[in-house]
Amino acid sequence: MSEPLDAILPLFHRISDLTHTAALLEWDQEVWMPDSAAASRAHQIATLRSIAHEFATSDELAAKIGDLAEYASANPEDDLAVSLARVATRDFQQATKLPTSFVATLAEAESLAKSTWRVARESDQFALFQDDLARVVDLNREKAALLGFDEHPYDALLDLYEPDLRASQVSTLFEALRSELVVIVATLSGLADGRAAPLHRYFEPDVQLEVGRRVVEKIGFDFTAGRQDLSSHPFCTTFSITDVRVTTRVDENFFPSAFYGLLHEMGHALYEQGINPRLERTPLADGTSLGMHESQSRLWENQVGRSRGFVEHVHPQLCSAFPEALSTVSAGEFHRAVNAVTPSLIRVEADEVTYNLHVMLRFELEVALFEDRLSVAELPEAWNDLSEAYLGLRPSNDAEGVLQDIHWAMGGFGYFPTYTIGNLMSAQLFKKAAADIGDLDEQFRAGQFSPLLDWLRENVHRFGRSRSADSILRTVTDQGLTAAPWLAYIRKKYADLYGTDL
Amino acid sequence: MSEPLDAILPLFHRISDLTHTAALLEWDQEVWMPDSAAASRAHQIATLRSIAHEFATSDELAAKIGDLAEYASANPEDDLAVSLARVATRDFQQATKLPTSFVATLAEAESLAKSTWRVARESDQFALFQDDLARVVDLNREKAALLGFDEHPYDALLDLYEPDLRASQVSTLFEALRSELVVIVATLSGLADGRAAPLHRYFEPDVQLEVGRRVVEKIGFDFTAGRQDLSSHPFCTTFSITDVRVTTRVDENFFPSAFYGLLHEMGHALYEQGINPRLERTPLADGTSLGMHESQSRLWENQVGRSRGFVEHVHPQLCSAFPEALSTVSAGEFHRAVNAVTPSLIRVEADEVTYNLHVMLRFELEVALFEDRLSVAELPEAWNDLSEAYLGLRPSNDAEGVLQDIHWAMGGFGYFPTYTIGNLMSAQLFKKAAADIGDLDEQFRAGQFSPLLDWLRENVHRFGRSRSADSILRTVTDQGLTAAPWLAYIRKKYADLYGTDL
Repeated sequence: MSEPLDAILPLFHRISDLTHTAALLEWDQEVWMPDSAAASRAHQIATLRSIAHEFATSDELAAKIGDLAEYASANPEDDLAVSLARVATRDFQQATKLPTSFVATLAEAESLAKSTWRVARESDQFALFQDDLARVVDLNREKAALLGFDEHPYDALLDLYEPDLRASQVSTLFEALRSELVVIVATLSGLADGRAAPLHRYFEPDVQLEVGRRVVEKIGFDFTAGRQDLSSHPFCTTFSITDVRVTTRVDENFFPSAFYGLLHEMGHALYEQGINPRLERTPLADGTSLGMHESQSRLWENQVGRSRGFVEHVHPQLCSAFPEALSTVSAGEFHRAVNAVTPSLIRVEADEVTYNLHVMLRFELEVALFEDRLSVAELPEAWNDLSEAYLGLRPSNDAEGVLQDIHWAMGGFGYFPTYTIGNLMSAQLFKKAAADIGDLDEQFRAGQFSPLLDWLRENVHRFGRSRSADSILRTVTDQGLTAAPWLAYIRKKYADLYGTDL
Repeated sequence: MSEPLDAILPLFHRISDLTHTAALLEWDQEVWMPDSAAASRAHQIATLRSIAHEFATSDELAAKIGDLAEYASANPEDDLAVSLARVATRDFQQATKLPTSFVATLAEAESLAKSTWRVARESDQFALFQDDLARVVDLNREKAALLGFDEHPYDALLDLYEPDLRASQVSTLFEALRSELVVIVATLSGLADGRAAPLHRYFEPDVQLEVGRRVVEKIGFDFTAGRQDLSSHPFCTTFSITDVRVTTRVDENFFPSAFYGLLHEMGHALYEQGINPRLERTPLADGTSLGMHESQSRLWENQVGRSRGFVEHVHPQLCSAFPEALSTVSAGEFHRAVNAVTPSLIRVEADEVTYNLHVMLRFELEVALFEDRLSVAELPEAWNDLSEAYLGLRPSNDAEGVLQDIHWAMGGFGYFPTYTIGNLMSAQLFKKAAADIGDLDEQFRAGQFSPLLDWLRENVHRFGRSRSADSILRTVTDQGLTAAPWLAYIRKKYADLYGTDL
């Protein structure tokens, strides 16, 4: 290894160990921590994050990144050094652009907004939340200014989650997509026929967990390097490449909640477990963007998990696990049930097709807020109008409208678009995988998942952050981010499922 | 609050948060961590511990401890400042006396010795372990010299676990105790009558856990500020005063393993949960010594858990939980069974009476090693000789002799005596508690544990490290560490149980 690399690695190790340990504090908080420990745990997380931030913004690190960057530009063939220099420079700049006092002010405002959001949602009173949200929006405008941008303040925030992507690109992409999607959704909603009914039955929770565990193990989740636990909100978290954990929640009266939730989190986990071990304890040992991460969860949840072949593969197992609930449900009926398209008001309950309309609604409102075309006070009405326009449904109260998500209270502006970007990427990758390795549906039917998983490992996972999302897409599919493969996938799949032209 | 205290608290908070987070990494490693994560977890623990060590030995901390000590000596009425100054000075001196390079050398030697100890014990070959142990002993001699001592090198190590106690005091105490104990044990062994048999039956593991949980909750373990989980070796660990966790292991064919193991760990946990919340995130929020900590675990495990009153209280619950195993076992038989005295070779399986002989054997060998009266090569033979002299049993191999404990491989010289010291302290405290609050056995029979727990909270727990073990004992019992109450307790209890003079 090169000298500048040798010199900087111990610094990377410290930062990596601290941030992964903070993640353990957070995981434990959601999964096992006793209630009374909330305050002390908050202190511990803050301490770990703040020490990590000190290391991540230290002069010593800056100097060593400088040495590494110099070495990398003189040795462009040293892939590891080049990637590390690029990513470490980006991280350092991002970490140092926000003054510590500003970070503290923002954290406080967001923490306050989170609390009032909970109360406002419970009591369905947006007014309780409005001022705190306005403060968070103002501070996030300031944050965008501090981070800097060329075109649009929103770009600075989007870049935190989806590096180098711009609001203008997202707008173009989403507008094209939306006009088509609204028509597709309207067509499918007209055909509503109660096909999801078989899933709204009693499914013994322990058996749901056991079946889910068996299925994700068969797909390739490595339980010697990971775990599955319960929590009130499902998530995936990583403590090292050899320790990736997912959580699920179980709805005893609705099968897809735990099962597809688990496939989703497993998709995230397979990405993390598939990163080249050589990148461990460096800034490269992570997903390259939230969109790319979401592409992996969506790919396994939807393109695989809701495919006809996969359903036929798991159907016998599910029938023997739930003989009562599924006694009269054929594989075909099950397949139709898990792919029922029904516009609804709540994003997290949305199906694969309508989900993106929920995202677009939020993106448009975010951009309008940051362009000062919309005030926080006007948000509820604007939300409801868009909901009616896109989904054909108008929320009857703010709890099922503008108050449904926690993201804005947490200052997560720029985050929502990555959900749809992940969907689009997943279709781009899936299409190319099918072209490379043959009839995937046939493979799923036979319970063969390793060809696809190996392909993803080879083309996406192993790189971690050493290649950008854009570079991965272009290398693999010869094209940047585009909606065409996803739209084609949706048209074909749902035309078949609903026996209609789309 | 005073200015020097205000100034030093943020430094204490950081160190406390880091060490408690390291404890979470270790807890998770024993309880949930997937196997493949061992190496990355070791890195994370080392990183957290080393950052904590940097903070704990920093010039900034030294300066602020100096200011605090100055303020404390001018304001002797400020209890908190005085205690903090004393304990922080002690911790700082201990942390800085060992050069970082020496700490690393020692850690490496101990890590190596731990590995070879495992192999040696598996294959019953002390020779495989001998050289690595000799190296650990040599380095611990060096450690004692670096730490400094007045009388005996062993004092420097003992002081790490039992502040201010000296080897000469322990020797005097143990010698007096041993001569009496050897006779008591010989008498009781002559009366062996298979009274433990009722406990060697099948007890459904899940029911064991459920019963144990109910009992410790009734006693006063706060499950909103703690947890109980499974691990291969039972332990208690603390992440904050509001998050104290115990682990147990279950032997489905031997009831006391989980049940009394849990009472023992619960005793440790009650101590930690009972520390004054005002001391949170300072060096005072911990047990004051290992002996005092062990006194709390032993008190609940033995003085309470193996008392006639307690057994009569839990007997109906146990009978309804294990109707088959206990159908013909009366409370009296159960009481005799959990108090069977049988000399055995393995310390961790020893009963309340013989246990201390195992400890004394180890203490004598440790002192002989540190006085150069004994070489590591001579250890196995010396062990077996003492075992025969004290317990009347000679190990037939080293796995049931000198290789049975991991402590020496880990460099834990000076640790073993605290087990017996804890037993002695528990009897001193229990005697005074009974004098203060009446017939404890009657209270246990009625399921009343709060008078005793409240008394311990008031007289021991709440102080944390702000009072030394010696000061607590003298304040509460008007006497320092002494064996008389424990011996009296043993004589009385076992004379009754065995119907013999002792």
